[in-house]
Amino acid sequence: MIGNSIGNRLVLTSFGESHGKVVGAVLDGCPAGLELDEKDIQKMLDQRRPGQSILATQRKEGDIVEIISGVFRGFTTGAPISMIIKNSDQKSNDYENLRTQLRPGHSDYPAMIKYNKFNDHRGGGRFSGRLTATHVMGGAIARKLLKITLDVETNSFTQQIGKIKMEKNFEKKMIKEIYKNEVRCPDANTSKKMKDEILKARKKGDTLGGIIQSITTNVPVGLGEPIFNSLESDLSKAMFAIPSVKGIEFGSGFQGSELFGSENNDLFIMKKGKIETKTNNSGGILGGISNGMPITMRIAFKPVSSIAQKQQTVDIKTKKQSILQVKGRHDPCVLPRAPPVVDSLVALTIADHALISGKIKATL
Amino acid sequence: MIGNSIGNRLVLTSFGESHGKVVGAVLDGCPAGLELDEKDIQKMLDQRRPGQSILATQRKEGDIVEIISGVFRGFTTGAPISMIIKNSDQKSNDYENLRTQLRPGHSDYPAMIKYNKFNDHRGGGRFSGRLTATHVMGGAIARKLLKITLDVETNSFTQQIGKIKMEKNFEKKMIKEIYKNEVRCPDANTSKKMKDEILKARKKGDTLGGIIQSITTNVPVGLGEPIFNSLESDLSKAMFAIPSVKGIEFGSGFQGSELFGSENNDLFIMKKGKIETKTNNSGGILGGISNGMPITMRIAFKPVSSIAQKQQTVDIKTKKQSILQVKGRHDPCVLPRAPPVVDSLVALTIADHALISGKIKATL
Amino acid sequence: MIGNSIGNRLVLTSFGESHGKVVGAVLDGCPAGLELDEKDIQKMLDQRRPGQSILATQRKEGDIVEIISGVFRGFTTGAPISMIIKNSDQKSNDYENLRTQLRPGHSDYPAMIKYNKFNDHRGGGRFSGRLTATHVMGGAIARKLLKITLDVETNSFTQQIGKIKMEKNFEKKMIKEIYKNEVRCPDANTSKKMKDEILKARKKGDTLGGIIQSITTNVPVGLGEPIFNSLESDLSKAMFAIPSVKGIEFGSGFQGSELFGSENNDLFIMKKGKIETKTNNSGGILGGISNGMPITMRIAFKPVSSIAQKQQTVDIKTKKQSILQVKGRHDPCVLPRAPPVVDSLVALTIADHALISGKIKATL
Amino acid sequence: MIGNSIGNRLVLTSFGESHGKVVGAVLDGCPAGLELDEKDIQKMLDQRRPGQSILATQRKEGDIVEIISGVFRGFTTGAPISMIIKNSDQKSNDYENLRTQLRPGHSDYPAMIKYNKFNDHRGGGRFSGRLTATHVMGGAIARKLLKITLDVETNSFTQQIGKIKMEKNFEKKMIKEIYKNEVRCPDANTSKKMKDEILKARKKGDTLGGIIQSITTNVPVGLGEPIFNSLESDLSKAMFAIPSVKGIEFGSGFQGSELFGSENNDLFIMKKGKIETKTNNSGGILGGISNGMPITMRIAFKPVSSIAQKQQTVDIKTKKQSILQVKGRHDPCVLPRAPPVVDSLVALTIADHALISGKIKATL
Repeated sequence: MIGNSIGNRLVLTSFGESHGKVVGAVLDGCPAGLELDEKDIQKMLDQRRPGQSILATQRKEGDIVEIISGVFRGFTTGAPISMIIKNSDQKSNDYENLRTQLRPGHSDYPAMIKYNKFNDHRGGGRFSGRLTATHVMGGAIARKLLKITLDVETNSFTQQIGKIKMEKNFEKKMIKEIYKNEVRCPDANTSKKMKDEILKARKKGDTLGGIIQSITTNVPVGLGEPIFNSLESDLSKAMFAIPSVKGIEFGSGFQGSELFGSENNDLFIMKKGKIETKTNNSGGILGGISNGMPITMRIAFKPVSSIAQKQQTVDIKTKKQSILQVKGRHDPCVLPRAPPVVDSLVALTIADHALISGKIKATL
Repeated sequence: MIGNSIGNRLVLTSFGESHGKVVGAVLDGCPAGLELDEKDIQKMLDQRRPGQSILATQRKEGDIVEIISGVFRGFTTGAPISMIIKNSDQKSNDYENLRTQLRPGHSDYPAMIKYNKFNDHRGGGRFSGRLTATHVMGGAIARKLLKITLDVETNSFTQQIGKIKMEKNFEKKMIKEIYKNEVRCPDANTSKKMKDEILKARKKGDTLGGIIQSITTNVPVGLGEPIFNSLESDLSKAMFAIPSVKGIEFGSGFQGSELFGSENNDLFIMKKGKIETKTNNSGGILGGISNGMPITMRIAFKPVSSIAQKQQTVDIKTKKQSILQVKGRHDPCVLPRAPPVVDSLVALTIADHALISGKIKATL
Repeated sequence: MIGNSIGNRLVLTSFGESHGKVVGAVLDGCPAGLELDEKDIQKMLDQRRPGQSILATQRKEGDIVEIISGVFRGFTTGAPISMIIKNSDQKSNDYENLRTQLRPGHSDYPAMIKYNKFNDHRGGGRFSGRLTATHVMGGAIARKLLKITLDVETNSFTQQIGKIKMEKNFEKKMIKEIYKNEVRCPDANTSKKMKDEILKARKKGDTLGGIIQSITTNVPVGLGEPIFNSLESDLSKAMFAIPSVKGIEFGSGFQGSELFGSENNDLFIMKKGKIETKTNNSGGILGGISNGMPITMRIAFKPVSSIAQKQQTVDIKTKKQSILQVKGRHDPCVLPRAPPVVDSLVALTIADHALISGKIKATL
Repeated sequence: MIGNSIGNRLVLTSFGESHGKVVGAVLDGCPAGLELDEKDIQKMLDQRRPGQSILATQRKEGDIVEIISGVFRGFTTGAPISMIIKNSDQKSNDYENLRTQLRPGHSDYPAMIKYNKFNDHRGGGRFSGRLTATHVMGGAIARKLLKITLDVETNSFTQQIGKIKMEKNFEKKMIKEIYKNEVRCPDANTSKKMKDEILKARKKGDTLGGIIQSITTNVPVGLGEPIFNSLESDLSKAMFAIPSVKGIEFGSGFQGSELFGSENNDLFIMKKGKIETKTNNSGGILGGISNGMPITMRIAFKPVSSIAQKQQTVDIKTKKQSILQVKGRHDPCVLPRAPPVVDSLVALTIADHALISGKIKATL
């Protein structure tokens, strides 16, 4: 497979371009017998559209998903499930001047070289954050499948935007708070500060990055196929399919590297007749395999590359220095839109492994 | 593929166990016509064996690699290259008491559940760090292939052990310093401190983690297959195949998340007639594709899980709390052994992509 | 990958159902820079619709293909090319009584068991011959790619229907005769007999099978990856993705099994400074690799399973014997529609291998 | 994957050369908990060595298999099972003159072009029939796995050699007769004629081909993943990994193409409370999925290419016509050695599908 598909047993294929006719996805390998309609997917797609106040972008994506195969009388059939969203509100002209001026932080330059100028550059083409809608199309199905078959739940939230961090530890009861604010941070106090930070950056024509935390609970013990399809390998591979992601860590991650073994080891305990660990520095994964504790990840997003400020760059045609001013509609910060995308890719990966190991049956 | 193979066009399959007869690897897809003999591989394998003073382990691995197929008259033939190292010095009895007492931080528990007690637990079995020798077998070949065909060079070094960090920025001329000391840190001053830190931890029966930095130069523009086989996706997937790795970041990574777009964007410049970027916060990858700048990664290793101190745990047979004292021979810190493993997996991933995109020919 | 995708470097994913909203395909891995529009595909799709006189089916499929991604300003971009055909003329009620009465020769029974009754049975669902339109969508692109880059041409024709055989040997000049008659047999005399045979069978409420011969010329020496991705392995795998195919042979095939080695061996000769073979009993493939001679295959199709005559069967609900009379619109013989499908799957397979071996570049 | 691996969930990787140090295999994805030792594999390997009287070859292969990973205390562990056979009796000098004179029917020519003369030509290298021992190594395990978990049995026999056919229909009770004679034909009368035919051909310095029939019983309903991983697709792909195979058919195959639908359709009947079909023209596969009836295939082998007679050919160095006389030790007919190889590849394919669909558990 060559770039636009992910998964071994449950395979998502993504297609479409930001300013083309559609963005779409095919999910192959989903068991027959899952009750499914567009609403299951639409709900998560809608969560990609946060409050308008914090977004520079005025593009009304609509993002109405249509299932065009694989579902019959309200249930999946075992055939590939294909879905599309029609693109309606493209303003390609905004992007025309980008054809030769390389945008810092964007894929323009390597994509031009790689595809010998045949690349569809409009609105970022295949490289647009808009394509994460295709991850959500498949991920919403995987997430429902996991919930129904194994009671697995995956959630994520904005833990940091720029230098503003949520200091409180995440607890399960916070889940319902995540989508109550525009930045998707479950702590009301922090979310307010984050929003201010975004508005401030936007005013300066600047952008912000941040960190998403992901927590997946009720994962059965034993998922993951070491050595090369460890859960960490496959989850990280999936996460880096999100534009702007530049780092990932599981459990105590980079900070754990500074601890002693005696501090970082999670001691095993019996809890209500079940084997658990006292702490969860491993992020729920030992030896690449789930150990039954929550799977926890932190994912680092770089600040949005499209800034309104003028930037020095090179014109690839003239091979000369030039000054670029990016137009078009851009988010000052993508973090608020990221949680459903992260949840989708986590769900796809975990469901893939649950199918491989037989924890989810080939037909329900 | 189900866990023990990695790569699309250049595929490494790993086999063997820590205390079995052999550890070995098959590399499929290597072009015919690469000059190769055991010495090319042995050299990198030997670098996995650092100075004895900092290691608790007295196991003399020897690690003499033998190529058993795929090479004829000193050149690769295009057939799969298979290699083995015979295991000679196993002391399995040391591990017998681990069968039921779960070792904190190890895969014992999920592996027992997953493989229903059929798992070969001796010396960690498939989960042992020893298996990284199989990555090096394949990686040494990929690294030579990259050097000869594209002049690509990949190197890595110990940037941090516990809380001891190398503060200097890495420069190309430091490469030759890396293997001059036992901890594989190119800065003499820092390396001395790191060694002391390891000896101190070892004395306390404790262990340390740390961070490896990897730099790959001369990568042609255009490697990487977005969306799901981006260079970042495939490199991170490969890195998490190393036991103890719990985090990875490219370029400015987690720290970049705190910057503004105007700070983190790498401006394009002309340099000696070539397009480059002024900074390299992207770590040489834009939109999942190489941009010609050095590919830089930082990889976080947790502290070694096998500590000499007593630890609280659970006996899986009795389902009761118990006290564990891990015996056997263990490293107080694996970082000094990690650079050749990191280099191997980077080389395998980059060479795979160079073959996919035709930058390396199918036959030399 | 789990059933609905084929290829390693050039991957076709098929989706849709006979009586669903669409049938469609995604082609991933096609090089950027191929000039392409719907007409290139439509032409081959139209060849799937032979003359109405020999077909019982009155279904007007229309089969208007729409490219919905991967093409920009008339050229492929390197992104996945997705295509759909909207289904317009479904009469699902005709099939309703098939839900419990198992149709002999059809997938009803194993599909019901496999998918636990969630299978979309309407018009055969995923198992309908209609799905071969998705092979043609991708195949038309691969065929154009092969022609433009390597001058490879692949053609096939009806060599036998029922017991009526074309006795003449196929010659290159016959190619232009193939589509001049309704049965796609380049010999006018035989084609007339074949048509009569079909009309006769149809009158009796019966159906016919037959044999398609495929010839691919100008294939470069050296395509095919032994042992398990030999050209024969991958071509045969592709052919059996066509409903009704039950046999395949290369070169002298089954008949060659009765010859002596001295009779069947193709002697090497020099011809116009080029190495060729005197005969082509190998069908252009030696050791799984193309040898530069035309690749020749014969593909056996069973007679159409849907006959108008009454048949004994079992009702899966009552588990009792019953009498079935298949309604709906069916072809008395699918051979006349098969050549573009065979050509498509041959082209996809050969193009995949040409990309793997670097004979076609990753970007044109 | 690029040629030397087969399977999705149960993956066999083959390595080694005819005259290299070893031939070997890695089987990945075999469930933990299968009782296994070398004897299970050796038995099938020994069946590849038929009676010496009918074989020209005096090479004593020995073929002693050694399991070098993946088995612990007599049971598979879930880790990759690797196996080797050391090559002991190579006489490479016999083959030296083949380096430039192209042997008709062999891979010499395309392999030289493909691998740019780096190919290991000794004894056929990777293209030697000897490599089928690697299929048997993996296949013997898959066959045992199928028998123990699902009571699936796969057997094959020599149905035709040259023009000598076994006319009797195969019945289950004949299985125990297959290995009672040197040609592996269960009918004593026919087997005698076949042996005579082989001896006669050998005397003339000529060779024979023939047909193997394969029957697999007790296959559960529902194996196979349409469209592109149909059972027929995957079985045929596997069969063409055997050197000399040039054709395959399922059920009534090529002959079925000449029948009417009313003749070829298998009518459903109730038999002892079970749904079966009256006839088995489909070869146990409908719509690419097993229907519970025996899976039957016929596989056509071309006559052995290495004949003792002089043949006209081309010298690739001088580009001139020349006369070749093949030396070395060769079989006049490979059919007698083929049944265990066919059984192995059938077992690998069926077991792969049984794992994909969950009919065999990931851990026993």
